[in-house]
Amino acid sequence: MNTFGRIFRLTSFGESHGRGIGGIIDGCPPGVEIDLNYIQHELSRRRPGQSKITTQRMEPDQVEFLSGIFEGKTQGTPIAFVIWNKDQHSNDYNDLKNIFRPSHADYTYQKKYGTRDYRGGGRSSARETIARVVAGAIARLILKKAGVAIKAYVSQVGEIYLDKSHQELDLSKIDDNIVRCPDAETAELMISRIEEAGRNHDTVGGVISGLVTGVPAGWGEPVFNKLHADLGFGMLGINAVKGFEYGSGFSGTRLTGSQHNDIFIKGEEGIRTSTNHSGGIQGGISNGEDIYFRVAFKPIATLLKEQQTVDSESNEVTINPKGRHDPCVLPRAVPIVEAMAALVLADHYLTQQLYTI
Amino acid sequence: MNTFGRIFRLTSFGESHGRGIGGIIDGCPPGVEIDLNYIQHELSRRRPGQSKITTQRMEPDQVEFLSGIFEGKTQGTPIAFVIWNKDQHSNDYNDLKNIFRPSHADYTYQKKYGTRDYRGGGRSSARETIARVVAGAIARLILKKAGVAIKAYVSQVGEIYLDKSHQELDLSKIDDNIVRCPDAETAELMISRIEEAGRNHDTVGGVISGLVTGVPAGWGEPVFNKLHADLGFGMLGINAVKGFEYGSGFSGTRLTGSQHNDIFIKGEEGIRTSTNHSGGIQGGISNGEDIYFRVAFKPIATLLKEQQTVDSESNEVTINPKGRHDPCVLPRAVPIVEAMAALVLADHYLTQQLYTI
Amino acid sequence: MNTFGRIFRLTSFGESHGRGIGGIIDGCPPGVEIDLNYIQHELSRRRPGQSKITTQRMEPDQVEFLSGIFEGKTQGTPIAFVIWNKDQHSNDYNDLKNIFRPSHADYTYQKKYGTRDYRGGGRSSARETIARVVAGAIARLILKKAGVAIKAYVSQVGEIYLDKSHQELDLSKIDDNIVRCPDAETAELMISRIEEAGRNHDTVGGVISGLVTGVPAGWGEPVFNKLHADLGFGMLGINAVKGFEYGSGFSGTRLTGSQHNDIFIKGEEGIRTSTNHSGGIQGGISNGEDIYFRVAFKPIATLLKEQQTVDSESNEVTINPKGRHDPCVLPRAVPIVEAMAALVLADHYLTQQLYTI
Amino acid sequence: MNTFGRIFRLTSFGESHGRGIGGIIDGCPPGVEIDLNYIQHELSRRRPGQSKITTQRMEPDQVEFLSGIFEGKTQGTPIAFVIWNKDQHSNDYNDLKNIFRPSHADYTYQKKYGTRDYRGGGRSSARETIARVVAGAIARLILKKAGVAIKAYVSQVGEIYLDKSHQELDLSKIDDNIVRCPDAETAELMISRIEEAGRNHDTVGGVISGLVTGVPAGWGEPVFNKLHADLGFGMLGINAVKGFEYGSGFSGTRLTGSQHNDIFIKGEEGIRTSTNHSGGIQGGISNGEDIYFRVAFKPIATLLKEQQTVDSESNEVTINPKGRHDPCVLPRAVPIVEAMAALVLADHYLTQQLYTI
Repeated sequence: MNTFGRIFRLTSFGESHGRGIGGIIDGCPPGVEIDLNYIQHELSRRRPGQSKITTQRMEPDQVEFLSGIFEGKTQGTPIAFVIWNKDQHSNDYNDLKNIFRPSHADYTYQKKYGTRDYRGGGRSSARETIARVVAGAIARLILKKAGVAIKAYVSQVGEIYLDKSHQELDLSKIDDNIVRCPDAETAELMISRIEEAGRNHDTVGGVISGLVTGVPAGWGEPVFNKLHADLGFGMLGINAVKGFEYGSGFSGTRLTGSQHNDIFIKGEEGIRTSTNHSGGIQGGISNGEDIYFRVAFKPIATLLKEQQTVDSESNEVTINPKGRHDPCVLPRAVPIVEAMAALVLADHYLTQQLYTI
Repeated sequence: MNTFGRIFRLTSFGESHGRGIGGIIDGCPPGVEIDLNYIQHELSRRRPGQSKITTQRMEPDQVEFLSGIFEGKTQGTPIAFVIWNKDQHSNDYNDLKNIFRPSHADYTYQKKYGTRDYRGGGRSSARETIARVVAGAIARLILKKAGVAIKAYVSQVGEIYLDKSHQELDLSKIDDNIVRCPDAETAELMISRIEEAGRNHDTVGGVISGLVTGVPAGWGEPVFNKLHADLGFGMLGINAVKGFEYGSGFSGTRLTGSQHNDIFIKGEEGIRTSTNHSGGIQGGISNGEDIYFRVAFKPIATLLKEQQTVDSESNEVTINPKGRHDPCVLPRAVPIVEAMAALVLADHYLTQQLYTI
Repeated sequence: MNTFGRIFRLTSFGESHGRGIGGIIDGCPPGVEIDLNYIQHELSRRRPGQSKITTQRMEPDQVEFLSGIFEGKTQGTPIAFVIWNKDQHSNDYNDLKNIFRPSHADYTYQKKYGTRDYRGGGRSSARETIARVVAGAIARLILKKAGVAIKAYVSQVGEIYLDKSHQELDLSKIDDNIVRCPDAETAELMISRIEEAGRNHDTVGGVISGLVTGVPAGWGEPVFNKLHADLGFGMLGINAVKGFEYGSGFSGTRLTGSQHNDIFIKGEEGIRTSTNHSGGIQGGISNGEDIYFRVAFKPIATLLKEQQTVDSESNEVTINPKGRHDPCVLPRAVPIVEAMAALVLADHYLTQQLYTI
Repeated sequence: MNTFGRIFRLTSFGESHGRGIGGIIDGCPPGVEIDLNYIQHELSRRRPGQSKITTQRMEPDQVEFLSGIFEGKTQGTPIAFVIWNKDQHSNDYNDLKNIFRPSHADYTYQKKYGTRDYRGGGRSSARETIARVVAGAIARLILKKAGVAIKAYVSQVGEIYLDKSHQELDLSKIDDNIVRCPDAETAELMISRIEEAGRNHDTVGGVISGLVTGVPAGWGEPVFNKLHADLGFGMLGINAVKGFEYGSGFSGTRLTGSQHNDIFIKGEEGIRTSTNHSGGIQGGISNGEDIYFRVAFKPIATLLKEQQTVDSESNEVTINPKGRHDPCVLPRAVPIVEAMAALVLADHYLTQQLYTI
């Protein structure tokens, strides 16, 4: 259950305060040149302590590859990797050993397994997503050769939202600011909103928008593993995600068919559509147009303020957590969204090879 | 790729105008009493021609079981079943042989496979979902013994929406009207809206809300196969679905953590939460509260009016489809949403057995 | 658990005395021309009642395809098929309802599932292998295009064995006699041996040898899914099989490394080996030489004579079965061995496409 | 493809001369007490340099666990582990960079992947089996609680064989000698035979016998994943294995049904069989009797003597390998056979939980 993908598969491991986080990538084709700087760059975009609006846990997050790469290239054999945990403050959690923090996974883990590693949330910590960023970066190296590019950006923080479609934005500017919103003005508002939440010892949620370009027509499986179903599955597996929509999404439900249908036209290099409410996917299969989607993140549950809750014996207790936490998960979740999209797309890219013998 | 589930698995087959639609259910425990009336009842809720607001294709949709059931009970062996197609009008599609209908899967199937069964959309037809309703009904028979109940209802049609939460509704009334909205007044408005669309030879989209009660704490896998990720995956695999959210969903992204967190309290029979923004799932695992979610359906693409499109040689053509089609997919999609939820939950129920040796 | 293969997957269903036997083939590439005569020919090689040395149950064993084929070609969508049971004599089994026949699966099914379809062995009947022959025939249609051919033949019946290697035999003669041994003289002895067993109301076991030619170097997965491990797994999944060996097999264990090693030489079209103790597979991956293997079948358990056993309440009982049974499973198992080999090889052929992007 | 098992799953990684060998165990239930001494003991039985008849590569083979264990117990989360490589002499292999050693996987890896890590055989090295021994040891900790015990022993080396069944042997003596044959006299002959091979710079093959006791009736899946098919699959996935048989095996093919059938009798604690040609498995499902099997190992391919071969450009070359190698793989393969049996049985044990809701 800790494996993602069918052909290009990531199996991840690790807990927030254990030895480290890592994984095994199986099904990666041989001959992929591993650009370590690129992988490390992606990790740095997810890294804690990267700016004033993220947690101050200081982790170098250096990936160490243990297998599957020889003379700089993948070998077709499993690629194991680990990112060692360095800056655990496990003692911060001793007081929480028997306490179920509100809206965390403490209670549900305990009920599921009858045991749990309470230090830093154990395996339920978003620190696990490091493994996805590593595997996603390798997936992107494969996709790049196929002409596919993936971009994600923060399009909403709390009630602040970006009222522009991806066509109206310059997505090369995503990393120009610490909140990862390509519109400078909105980014400022978002940063202020996050700082305000931090000052209040509170947190804020928001939305990340994703865009995939360069996917040719034909990727995706028509019934259960529709391309958007696999994308949604990947996104909903990210910590704190509460919703996923693609193309016209929830707002498209208010349109009529004659408003919503994308008319086919003859393009310069083949068939195109005049509009793209379909979000680049029809019947679960890519049609060659841009694939775009939105991912909803709740405000994260860790508040550095007093809260009521119960302990493992149902006693009411008050907690007042200290520690180092993000007031908003969105900026650091951008590379995670991109990574999950890359894992899904690499899987479908490889799967599509099976139809062309 | 035509298999859904890991433990309780449905592999589906069939095309709209082929011999029939069916599937194999593998991993069903032995000893489940098969209530044929119940299964047939669920199929009749999905059946075409059931009311004035659905397609007039007349299919009896009688399920025939081919294996796995003996003396009225499952045997632990694969359960194969088929629903024979009866009322195909395949000739209706001869003119569309080389034409890509807007926002259908004609074009993408052709690009994926290099071939396609053009009759009635072939495998891309929502007629395939019959197989899910059969398997979902058996999953529900299993879940029922575990105390789990699943309900879905139409909560939006076009711009008409139901402004009540599931707690404010009497869900025993879902099937009291043909649109399957438990609020009689809103149901009337929705039916009018669908009839209007039909008169305009147009279609409308909407939202189906789902509710799962009776799930104990502990179901769901914490990382990729979070309970809501599997639910979302199931829903996004239904034809015409564009989005999924659970608990507070997209609207919860505007809240702060202190507004959003669900405080644990001591309940009569164990730990409960005072609010339920979490939608009954925390860290991907059920917490014992109600699980609720929303599924966005686009307006379906088949319009009985003139539309521009292209054929397989990129020539511009005008189509003006005749035939029998739903102006709104929502009423018939209610049992499909319930079925997919049932498949996901039965899978997690069985999976949970593996943790308790 | 009723699915075989990872990419080219057969999920089978059905019981000996149910409605029929069938399956779904998922992962078959589009565009494969379905030669119905060829498939039916393979079924007729497995069919009961085909000669004086097989059971006299008369089944036409006509395959009916339900999906996935359009205008004579596969569509990339799931191919469902069924072979209807016609000549069940279910009443023959009423007396055996509560009795565990020796060396059958009656007892173990009952212990596993707490229930069983006792008619004709239910799902444990070798009649289930029909589904494999259908899927195997389609796999062979794919492999044929890749230049791969599969042959199996009876090389031992009881103590009668064929003392020739596959190079010394003319494998075009396999079907020249009813026992499917390509050496006419040995075939005669084998037929006599089977007839003798039949007269004694007894059964005999034996060995089937298999040969796969035309596999290029590079098929097979190096660790768990070694090409021979998957072949062995496929063969050991056939009813009555007790052992599998490939290349030098058990007899090779007596050689030294210097006797056993296959020296590489420069061949006309690339690298070859001077001997082939490896059986065409090195490190789990094909090396381009002939793949050959042997499969051990026990004497089947159904004896038409008096035997002691117990019933479900541990009472000692005497059974004296009547009915129609094979005195030797080997002749009819030849197409089944070929089918399982084809399923394995088609799977690895398709898998190999994933390494060449 | 580097994953073994369906419920209790090992994904292994690593190359002979890379950073190390390891894996991730997913699907292990929570609450299993991890006995590190026991795991390390199993590794020491597989370790190189353990006696005068094994390779002199000196590896401490200490396992390091990276996740999934907390306060000495499994958590239900993935268990990652690594055994660091210490004593690589990678330079020994520089001369072999472009040479295909006879009966190794050098050639086939190159043809499969277009690239390979030539140092020490890379991933094709039997050093990979360390990962299986670690996972197998944990599987055995689970099985032990269920009353299941697994024993393997060397029953043949070259032409020296042990002419006793497992009932005639005292299996507590397996580790009393360095060849792991429980019969002291035969063990001496085997050791001499191996030493002779070593003196000749040659190698010898042989057979390992396995025994599983304490499995209750009901484990195993009836069609493809028969208990013996999964056992055979596991064994055939071990390096150098050429064959597998269980119960009466190949020799049983010469018996008649009346000789071979195991008569059911009333035992003290339920139904038993009077003989056990079935090897404890009927219809693919355990019947409660002892499960026994035999595994054929070829003589390993690495000879420390001059041999002819070709290089990557088909030039004929002579190699004369130096280095540290086993003259016989059998003694060190005993714990590997046990480990693979344990992985299969733990998987079926857990699977069986799914039938009893």
